Amino acid sequence: MSKKSLAILMRARMRGAPNEPHGHRPQQISRSAPNPSRVSDRSHSSNLADSNGISAKDVKEWMQASISIPAGSRDPADAYLEEFSQGYLMLSQEGRRELLLALSRDYDVNRARVRELMRQYLSLELSHGATDDQQSSGLDDDGALSTFYRMERNLRDALKPMYAEFFERLNAHPGGLKLLAILRADLLVFLGEENLPSLRALDSYLKEKLITWLSPAALELHQITWDDSASLLEKIVAYEAVHPIRNLIDLKRRLSVGRRCFGYFHPAIPGEPLIFIEVALLKDVACSIQEVLWDDPPIPECEARCALFYSISSTQPGLSGINLGKFLLKRVIDMLRKDVPSIAIFATLSPIPGFMQWLLSKLASQIKLAEAETEEAKLLDMGSGSAFRESLLLQDEEKIILESFTENVTGKSGIEIMHYLLQSSEWVKSECLSAALKPPLMRLCARYLHKEKKRGKALDAVANFHLQNGAIVERINWMADQSEKGIRQSGGIMVNYVYRLEEIDKNAQSYLSTGHIHASPRLC
Amino acid sequence: MSKKSLAILMRARMRGAPNEPHGHRPQQISRSAPNPSRVSDRSHSSNLADSNGISAKDVKEWMQASISIPAGSRDPADAYLEEFSQGYLMLSQEGRRELLLALSRDYDVNRARVRELMRQYLSLELSHGATDDQQSSGLDDDGALSTFYRMERNLRDALKPMYAEFFERLNAHPGGLKLLAILRADLLVFLGEENLPSLRALDSYLKEKLITWLSPAALELHQITWDDSASLLEKIVAYEAVHPIRNLIDLKRRLSVGRRCFGYFHPAIPGEPLIFIEVALLKDVACSIQEVLWDDPPIPECEARCALFYSISSTQPGLSGINLGKFLLKRVIDMLRKDVPSIAIFATLSPIPGFMQWLLSKLASQIKLAEAETEEAKLLDMGSGSAFRESLLLQDEEKIILESFTENVTGKSGIEIMHYLLQSSEWVKSECLSAALKPPLMRLCARYLHKEKKRGKALDAVANFHLQNGAIVERINWMADQSEKGIRQSGGIMVNYVYRLEEIDKNAQSYLSTGHIHASPRLC
Repeated sequence: MSKKSLAILMRARMRGAPNEPHGHRPQQISRSAPNPSRVSDRSHSSNLADSNGISAKDVKEWMQASISIPAGSRDPADAYLEEFSQGYLMLSQEGRRELLLALSRDYDVNRARVRELMRQYLSLELSHGATDDQQSSGLDDDGALSTFYRMERNLRDALKPMYAEFFERLNAHPGGLKLLAILRADLLVFLGEENLPSLRALDSYLKEKLITWLSPAALELHQITWDDSASLLEKIVAYEAVHPIRNLIDLKRRLSVGRRCFGYFHPAIPGEPLIFIEVALLKDVACSIQEVLWDDPPIPECEARCALFYSISSTQPGLSGINLGKFLLKRVIDMLRKDVPSIAIFATLSPIPGFMQWLLSKLASQIKLAEAETEEAKLLDMGSGSAFRESLLLQDEEKIILESFTENVTGKSGIEIMHYLLQSSEWVKSECLSAALKPPLMRLCARYLHKEKKRGKALDAVANFHLQNGAIVERINWMADQSEKGIRQSGGIMVNYVYRLEEIDKNAQSYLSTGHIHASPRLC
Repeated sequence: MSKKSLAILMRARMRGAPNEPHGHRPQQISRSAPNPSRVSDRSHSSNLADSNGISAKDVKEWMQASISIPAGSRDPADAYLEEFSQGYLMLSQEGRRELLLALSRDYDVNRARVRELMRQYLSLELSHGATDDQQSSGLDDDGALSTFYRMERNLRDALKPMYAEFFERLNAHPGGLKLLAILRADLLVFLGEENLPSLRALDSYLKEKLITWLSPAALELHQITWDDSASLLEKIVAYEAVHPIRNLIDLKRRLSVGRRCFGYFHPAIPGEPLIFIEVALLKDVACSIQEVLWDDPPIPECEARCALFYSISSTQPGLSGINLGKFLLKRVIDMLRKDVPSIAIFATLSPIPGFMQWLLSKLASQIKLAEAETEEAKLLDMGSGSAFRESLLLQDEEKIILESFTENVTGKSGIEIMHYLLQSSEWVKSECLSAALKPPLMRLCARYLHKEKKRGKALDAVANFHLQNGAIVERINWMADQSEKGIRQSGGIMVNYVYRLEEIDKNAQSYLSTGHIHASPRLC
């Protein structure tokens, strides 16, 4: 396969919406199966064939057939699994939903059997009198213990939903792991629409199995270079989620001298990384993505002092919540230490995906609170200003904002103006507004990264990822990502996390146990 | 690494006993760790250090430390896992036994918690009134169902032995999968010595996990050639269990034109196949291993009509009972069909490892029965010969044996002479004895393969393997393996199993469901 098809893909992508969720792209790229209309207006299509003639009922029958064949004789099940796999991909979104719902309900835990076994287990305990005391005293009453072990094994089996066997078989079937990931991606979409307990249980069980099958022991690290096949590079282009690859020159630069790209591959999903990371070898920690990707020419690798991780993308939306990045990062650091011994600093240049969303909602609630207080003040005939109101802007900051904003602002507070400005990206075009917004945005961004939490962990997902892996928050950088997306997500600010090798374990442990966010003193 | 070390290994192996069980060889070859004295005369060495200063107690502490660290923060556990791994390999056999016993007992299922959860589960059912009828009617009472799902998940977790987490962590740790296989190999040895329920439960749980981790989806098929590294080829030499590799020329021939060798590899155990298969591309199904390995020069591959599988060896005794061969065979057949389209026959030339053992015990019991009858006849003053006695030899066969055996045979029956002769391999050297033994041995061997069963399956382990994969018993071959081992195991007889592609699934299914052994009509 020549690199020509890659160039064609590039052009196609450039024309398409760059920010479409990358959820179901992979399927469309890698499969030649007809692209089903994924949104169906039929609310219950059980007995109606989809546009391509495949109905959820057909696919359900293949599923049932592949489950019903006895466990020992897997071969004949293979044909059904193949039919199921092909059929599932041809189903409409509604057909898939129906099928997964049927799987979750009709192949659930056999509760009658579980109850029966539990009663036996509880009664057995009494009749044999094997209490915990006896157990812990190391008494090895062979007969009684064997019975316990046997019953516990039976209970473990009985507590598995009946679809467990189906997942096991599908995983062993060629192409099955990929299909399971697609299945879970669909499940996550359906759960987003409606949180049904049976689908949630299906998802949670499938996730657990995927974690086992995708153990780091089963994954292979591969350095992706310009010598790799076009079909692989095409996937890198399609899946790069952080900083879209603009053209072939951009791609080539990311794989050439002074740059590295590493992917984690699973034998069952060949030619397609599950997750990949892009690294730049630099003199020092970069302050902006522009200099990494476009502005500066690469330096000789022997002069590199910093390995900068500037992008990490996972390719399977169905593997969401399965932390492969942590192990990838660890192995890449080990590899780079051997490969480029001059490197002393391992850092990231990371997006802050949740900052602007957090800030806008903070500002909005402040404005609401202020309005309520004004109402109250009117009613109670008191002056405004309350101890309950958080002061998001410092006095100086508010003053400068008011001065910089030249439109009609009668009666508007600095917070209201800021909230208004940040809802679009127009402010970036004005030097004056940028200068006025920089101090509060930088100060509040540091606070967001360092202090804001959710269930005891950093509120920002990327921050949480690096902190749990043992990094510290080192520095935030103004106008580090001036892309439309960068401005929208974080006002263009990016952050450097730093991995100090000797402190990784200590930091990770203290973050995980106490939630303490380690940051450089110069951050705040 | 040059091929020199391989030649040195060859010489070393040729000097060593060729028939030593290949159980613990791999470790000694691939690890540079000091070779611990595996047999300790200390019956209880808990507080005594082994010769290398490592005690079971130390290793147990590392194990405990690695388990006790909370699940989220795996990094610090890594150091303990590393210490555990190193330490375990340094322990004596007795130290390992002690450690595994401690693991199986102190990290067993928490029965108090299981009981408590079960009581909650059973009571919950009553109070919510969520019976099976309601469930199957598709009623989705969100609250109640969610509670069931949650409790079932908790029960599944609680029913896992506490060592489950340790196995999971070890598997994710570099080198962990290999260590788990070593651990299980040790377990199997200890269980062979004494069948303790707690160790058996540990083994059965570990086996179940290994089956999951070694799912065919995680394995990679690789064709092993003379271009592979010496370190890999060295392992092929060390692990070849069926027909030992005599020298470098023998090895090279098995990897060159007209021959194939395929291995199944797991990413976590690089450079070492878990199982490998050797194939010869021939004009027709071979009748003896001599012609495959030494006598006939290879034919041009385009003239090959038969792919003959003449050796399949698994390298990890700790993976015993985990059927990797079936998937390997399937994939190799698929690959050869594409690679060498002229091939029309897929057959094996297989040993019959259990034949002589079965025959000798049959003969011995016949002799005993005859003796008992003679005694009885004396007492009751009746003639000998009884309807209960099975006639192992036909009259003609007995006659020829009596004629051929020239030593003093007064009063000995043909069965007694046969039993005597088959206990050594001397008969092979006499043309006359060979000719006399051939008809009964061939006839009884066909019967052994075709009729003798254990729990409804073929008694011979290799036969059972190929039959469950869908092969049929095609032909048995006289003097097909004249090696010491071949004569001892099966009187030099080997068997061809044939895989008829269009019948594989059908045969496998009928064998697995009814135990019916499919054989060629000319066999019997």
